[in-house]
Amino acid sequence: MLFRQFFDNTSSTYTYLIASGRGREALIIDPVKEYTQAYLDIVNQLDLRLVRAIDTHTHADHFTALGDLRDETNCITTMGEFTNADCVSEQVSEGDRIDVDGIRLEALYTPGHTDESFSFYWKQGDQRAVFTGDVLLIRGSGRTDFQGGDPHKSYDSIVNKLFRLPDETLVYPAHDYKGMLSSSIYEEKHYNPRLAGKSEAEYVQIMNDLNLPDPKLMDVAVPANLACGKLP
Amino acid sequence: MLFRQFFDNTSSTYTYLIASGRGREALIIDPVKEYTQAYLDIVNQLDLRLVRAIDTHTHADHFTALGDLRDETNCITTMGEFTNADCVSEQVSEGDRIDVDGIRLEALYTPGHTDESFSFYWKQGDQRAVFTGDVLLIRGSGRTDFQGGDPHKSYDSIVNKLFRLPDETLVYPAHDYKGMLSSSIYEEKHYNPRLAGKSEAEYVQIMNDLNLPDPKLMDVAVPANLACGKLP
Repeated sequence: MLFRQFFDNTSSTYTYLIASGRGREALIIDPVKEYTQAYLDIVNQLDLRLVRAIDTHTHADHFTALGDLRDETNCITTMGEFTNADCVSEQVSEGDRIDVDGIRLEALYTPGHTDESFSFYWKQGDQRAVFTGDVLLIRGSGRTDFQGGDPHKSYDSIVNKLFRLPDETLVYPAHDYKGMLSSSIYEEKHYNPRLAGKSEAEYVQIMNDLNLPDPKLMDVAVPANLACGKLP
Repeated sequence: MLFRQFFDNTSSTYTYLIASGRGREALIIDPVKEYTQAYLDIVNQLDLRLVRAIDTHTHADHFTALGDLRDETNCITTMGEFTNADCVSEQVSEGDRIDVDGIRLEALYTPGHTDESFSFYWKQGDQRAVFTGDVLLIRGSGRTDFQGGDPHKSYDSIVNKLFRLPDETLVYPAHDYKGMLSSSIYEEKHYNPRLAGKSEAEYVQIMNDLNLPDPKLMDVAVPANLACGKLP
């Protein structure tokens, strides 16, 4: 199996390239437009064929590479069923399974950061991982103040869906800002300062008190990403 | 098994925390001083006990956490036998094996970036990884113009030692500046632009032509790191 995490320093975004290694098919999660050529280079160098590019949600802080990767590789582009990005060729629903050459991902509807955010859960043998987008971050969680964000839904997605995955499930988010690259459900359950020992009301209060400035790129990134990152 | 990579954005340094999970002992490779508390937090949260902190070489671009971690945890501090950092409690030689609770690392003397750089090779079942410090980077290699650096030795360490590890060996360097988090011996052998298809003379020419400015922290970091990061 091949598993590669990439980091975009500008937006602190993590991207994941995954292939089973059985055949040559690969998928990518949350790719960043500026790295399109870098992804294509490594896909070629590893003699892989990119067949699916997935965005967990409509990003507001960077441009997605979905459209460019589709143009270059003819890959399927995938988002959750409630996305407004009509450009994608596949929309998944809760419980849907994506199978790329033996890499099986289960789609989990996890709104809260946006109203169309999905997470993707992978298990094989005794290994488990979940790609949480911006819903659950490492010792944090994605802001809930735009794009249909809702702290109640965020709490519900995290506590009642993600935290019910096995403790040993590795957590791979779409961002981190403090040098952490991965976590686990166990750790987030017990040590996420917004969630561990907190009631829903306390969590909602924390999120409502964040008062974050809008992402710098939001006004251009969201419309561009609704067109799969193809700038107007 | 637990494997965690950390990223220091200021110096683009990667740090690795590893534990077998059989018992609770853990080791850390190339820790950064500013993250000492973050490492201790995660070690505690995972109910681990840090027993060894390893530096691949005397870093010139950041302060090592070796001394602080030793003071906090009483861990063994490890470097290669040619280091001038007399503060470390253990010096390893070519072929030495470190065993932390079933995590077995083999010390490989890989000079070139500095004259005292070691790499650490790990294998278990069909998994292999090598922690290369600054000798072999992802699609690059560490500069060879100070601290006893030598492009001939760098070429020899990479081509005649690291490239003889199995192709599937994952490469985990101490730095990356382009968002890549890991590589493999296969990839570096075939796609590292300084090395793939290059003679030793061509490599030496490339390294001698780099003309890089000194690292900003060099004049303070090197003396501090010779004291395990304990600032004078």
